[in-house]
Amino acid sequence: MRTNVVSLLTDFGTQDNYVGVMKGVILTILPGTSLVDITHDIPRHSVEHAAFLLERSYRYFPPGTVHLVVVDPEVGGARKPIAVRADKHFFVCPDNGVMSHVLTRLEQWEAREIENKDFLLVKMSNSFHGRDLFSPVAAYLSKGVPFEKFGPRLKDPVRFPIEQPKANNGQLEGTIVYIDRYGNLISNIEESLMLSFDGDCKADVSLDGRPVSSLQTSYSDVPENTPVALLGGFGLLEVAINQGNAKEHFKADLGSTISVTR
Amino acid sequence: MRTNVVSLLTDFGTQDNYVGVMKGVILTILPGTSLVDITHDIPRHSVEHAAFLLERSYRYFPPGTVHLVVVDPEVGGARKPIAVRADKHFFVCPDNGVMSHVLTRLEQWEAREIENKDFLLVKMSNSFHGRDLFSPVAAYLSKGVPFEKFGPRLKDPVRFPIEQPKANNGQLEGTIVYIDRYGNLISNIEESLMLSFDGDCKADVSLDGRPVSSLQTSYSDVPENTPVALLGGFGLLEVAINQGNAKEHFKADLGSTISVTR
Amino acid sequence: MRTNVVSLLTDFGTQDNYVGVMKGVILTILPGTSLVDITHDIPRHSVEHAAFLLERSYRYFPPGTVHLVVVDPEVGGARKPIAVRADKHFFVCPDNGVMSHVLTRLEQWEAREIENKDFLLVKMSNSFHGRDLFSPVAAYLSKGVPFEKFGPRLKDPVRFPIEQPKANNGQLEGTIVYIDRYGNLISNIEESLMLSFDGDCKADVSLDGRPVSSLQTSYSDVPENTPVALLGGFGLLEVAINQGNAKEHFKADLGSTISVTR
Repeated sequence: MRTNVVSLLTDFGTQDNYVGVMKGVILTILPGTSLVDITHDIPRHSVEHAAFLLERSYRYFPPGTVHLVVVDPEVGGARKPIAVRADKHFFVCPDNGVMSHVLTRLEQWEAREIENKDFLLVKMSNSFHGRDLFSPVAAYLSKGVPFEKFGPRLKDPVRFPIEQPKANNGQLEGTIVYIDRYGNLISNIEESLMLSFDGDCKADVSLDGRPVSSLQTSYSDVPENTPVALLGGFGLLEVAINQGNAKEHFKADLGSTISVTR
Repeated sequence: MRTNVVSLLTDFGTQDNYVGVMKGVILTILPGTSLVDITHDIPRHSVEHAAFLLERSYRYFPPGTVHLVVVDPEVGGARKPIAVRADKHFFVCPDNGVMSHVLTRLEQWEAREIENKDFLLVKMSNSFHGRDLFSPVAAYLSKGVPFEKFGPRLKDPVRFPIEQPKANNGQLEGTIVYIDRYGNLISNIEESLMLSFDGDCKADVSLDGRPVSSLQTSYSDVPENTPVALLGGFGLLEVAINQGNAKEHFKADLGSTISVTR
Repeated sequence: MRTNVVSLLTDFGTQDNYVGVMKGVILTILPGTSLVDITHDIPRHSVEHAAFLLERSYRYFPPGTVHLVVVDPEVGGARKPIAVRADKHFFVCPDNGVMSHVLTRLEQWEAREIENKDFLLVKMSNSFHGRDLFSPVAAYLSKGVPFEKFGPRLKDPVRFPIEQPKANNGQLEGTIVYIDRYGNLISNIEESLMLSFDGDCKADVSLDGRPVSSLQTSYSDVPENTPVALLGGFGLLEVAINQGNAKEHFKADLGSTISVTR
């Protein structure tokens, strides 16, 4: 199960040296590691945003990948550092809810509180655990140190509640949970739910009460600059404007309501 | 000819997880691949911009590199996915003109339409071929799967016309085709053309009718904040301001006219 | 001492292909190199900014790493290209002061002027030494070419003066030398100096005459949106707002004065 792949997901941005030195620490412990940035542009301290992207990303990496997630507003405070083994992947992160989406969707997983100082940098800061604690732990995990060695089992890592779509009276109602750089509006309605509700693609999709379209299969199924509802790359029902910006067009935001009406 | 290098050139930006999951897919198929970002900041859907940068970049990579180019406004529509072998490099991209600059400059190349589903992700979306189609194809190509296996030969991939500089009456006239982050104005006048026209560097270069300088050899051949014409790193005639911003200084843009007058 | 790690620190940004082609050149010479971006968002031509970040970054990389630093306002002019061996690391950069912070802190180092054309690209531009000169030299150094082969010894590379904190009358006075993307204000007061001056954490820290706090150990030692002084991840005395932006709160900037009063 060793792959020598470590993914990184943070809110550090790329203008400082923060991500670079984390990678230096990992390569010092495990030369040749493949280091992959998921993104470093998580809005500052937005644990929910990171939790969503993490769950939608990890399965595209090889089994055995260590996912290093550092969105850590309480660094140096009471929150615990943890490591999680789930679905043949490893996760190293603060225990602040960032694992919520991954853990909510899985029945089997195991979490450990990181306590073993053998796997941390000798000189530890209280303000940059990404470099001094999470990076070396990720490297040692990727190197094959047994999961159990990092610390005692943690039974109940922090998980925040995840809003689920509601179905009633021939209507399915969900929420916009992510907006990408193109302005595409990603909802919390899973592909499987949508297809079981609207398998023949005859329902109308609307956003905050404004009509979008029936379910299409690609952006280019509608003319340019036209609204379109489809099951997008996230595996979720999404609202877009073909070659345009749905966020601007609909003046929508996180929390906007998406409805599917038969 | 195997190098295990895949370059990536997209308009995906880096705030979402799009580039990260593409890399995860590649590393799942071919562990240890060296993944190099050319840029992900191509202006949205600007196939021309990507086509230019691709041609100016690929030859700095080792022979056998697979260049993965995803600027794909018509994803899921009628445009075909293709693979191209040219000048000892491979290219994987939508057939939308993004190969125009590379193909126009070469006599020998071979294009294939990607049809063989053995080399795609099992679960294919219609909106993210970068992850589900182009990335796995790039990985299998880099892994050594014979080029012929991906699909049938494509005789006439899309190529848009490329404007060439004009020479007459002792004047050479070209166009600004790229502007870099420093505001340097890159023209379509090749180094070789410029040197054959103005080998003794006595001609005057002007931009939209305003004088720039005679041909210099480096930015610092002129005082700070002074316009300078030179053969820059792109191998093209370029207009800059030494330590300043030529785009702002000249209020220039893509399409501005550059003239060389003997 | 070979590690096959090359770090990159430039002001090239990531919207052009500049960083990508540098990596292509390196991988052509030394396949499999681990390439790590420190940052490419150094403010244009800010040698001082790069010099600071370089010194605070290099030691987190494995010994033998080659650090490629290209902030080079005088490219093609009189400044020399150099290679430096120091503290078991290599540095390749223009001789313009970017090594100031590293060299000022070390007693032993050796600098070479890069003169041997065997290790440069055959076709050299005068405007992109990052690609044509510094990248191939970094690759050959990483490949194990003896340091001595690159050119003659340089006794006195450019070093700009580095302002030191002043201590008198029970007061320690320093300067803000770096501001990170969170608005944290990083001073030039080293952890060791601070602890020798204020070992019992009873002194008051102020910024431009406004009170901050006594010395704390982490951001979360104070309530949210409250100023806090601490020894941060840079190993320097720093002023922050817990989960806020100290640069904005204090209307501070580079050069602001930080004082520690017993």
